[in-house]
Amino acid sequence: MRYKIKFSYDGTNFYGYQKQPGLRTVEEEFEKALTYINNHQDTKIFSSGRTDKGVHALCQVAHFDIDVSITLYKLKCALNSLLPEDIHVFSTEVVDNSFHARFLVKKKKYRYVLNLGEYNPLERNYVYQYCKNKELDITLMKKEILSFIGEHNFESFVSNEAKLDSYVRTIYDVSLYQDKDYLIFEFIGSGFMKYQVRNMVGTLLRVGEHKIDEGSIDKILNFDMDSKYVYTMKPEGLYLVDVSYE
Amino acid sequence: MRYKIKFSYDGTNFYGYQKQPGLRTVEEEFEKALTYINNHQDTKIFSSGRTDKGVHALCQVAHFDIDVSITLYKLKCALNSLLPEDIHVFSTEVVDNSFHARFLVKKKKYRYVLNLGEYNPLERNYVYQYCKNKELDITLMKKEILSFIGEHNFESFVSNEAKLDSYVRTIYDVSLYQDKDYLIFEFIGSGFMKYQVRNMVGTLLRVGEHKIDEGSIDKILNFDMDSKYVYTMKPEGLYLVDVSYE
Repeated sequence: MRYKIKFSYDGTNFYGYQKQPGLRTVEEEFEKALTYINNHQDTKIFSSGRTDKGVHALCQVAHFDIDVSITLYKLKCALNSLLPEDIHVFSTEVVDNSFHARFLVKKKKYRYVLNLGEYNPLERNYVYQYCKNKELDITLMKKEILSFIGEHNFESFVSNEAKLDSYVRTIYDVSLYQDKDYLIFEFIGSGFMKYQVRNMVGTLLRVGEHKIDEGSIDKILNFDMDSKYVYTMKPEGLYLVDVSYE
Repeated sequence: MRYKIKFSYDGTNFYGYQKQPGLRTVEEEFEKALTYINNHQDTKIFSSGRTDKGVHALCQVAHFDIDVSITLYKLKCALNSLLPEDIHVFSTEVVDNSFHARFLVKKKKYRYVLNLGEYNPLERNYVYQYCKNKELDITLMKKEILSFIGEHNFESFVSNEAKLDSYVRTIYDVSLYQDKDYLIFEFIGSGFMKYQVRNMVGTLLRVGEHKIDEGSIDKILNFDMDSKYVYTMKPEGLYLVDVSYE
């Protein structure tokens, strides 16, 4: 039987989502719990994708196959009692065997949160603490962020470590707004590659700080400006907010 | 020269405010930093009071005397660069030698935050995660919390560890409100003893769960009902919010 789950996690104490020998990862915690539930048969989990070290998820989606007969409510309780306190499953459902959490993703939404106010020690792992002494041209950034909308080759905005066949992705919508002391960036797209959101936000900030000119995002996307102007933000302000399927 | 500072801290990784041999405390972190700034002369800090292990402060106040000549801005920067990332000084001022951060406290405000919704792994150290399956009679709790207002002997609501000359304190105002999934308790009073806020909140919850009757708070305050009905909440939902002086 195939199950689809939705879950959240605090990325602070994980070396990212993906399993790595000897390191604490979200994937490994799930596979330990699922193997236990599935009568100690090795059980794999397939998520919508990875997140990096320190990145959080408000809603990540995954699927797995288990043989045991268990109600959805009991599966949720079993998982949450076996998983550590920094992961929480909030939804379980039975899906058709044709469902695949990674291959069938339609859209993903990511959020990046910046604190423009006084440093807050209680949020040091949950927002990027931006030094308030620098003046940010938010109006300009709101214009500049629109350049990301559409189908583009995002190679300049992707980590060099990522070796992919294609760097073409579509961004359906973006948003940039201020809520009290927080500056919040949101991106909805077909998929995002390693460091892509952190690089898009970092480069937008450089425009907002007038370190690079208005129009730079467009030029970098079109390979008319060097990718050395791309700046990577730290992971703690980044959230996977939603994943949607057909 | 005497300085008054305001600061916030994340209580998660501290064994409380007060110094204890071999344990990480807020007081010790400050005294290390101040001794360094004060040309390596042993320097003491005097706060408005202690907070327990796991309890947070949004605004704690303290004073200290140092001999070195330093601007207020540089003092703030020096402290924040020497202090760990879970403490942050946001205000520094010069005060008269008659100022005392503990003896001259007029009012303190504490807040306790409960999550009534789905368990949130990102807030596990910052709110108390209340199981949503229990029905809470919030209207009744809003009535019951008013019993705390006024001058009372709070001995039944104080930890047995606290041996004090007097358990009489005044509560000037209380508040209980729901904001989305959060239930927020606030208390403004002349001073609070060990576990007092956590015990007041815990006992209110028992009233809201109909485990003890309406009117129990009043009876416990008047020693007409046994203090065994007092329940202590965990520390992670508790915040010292403000301290005020004459």
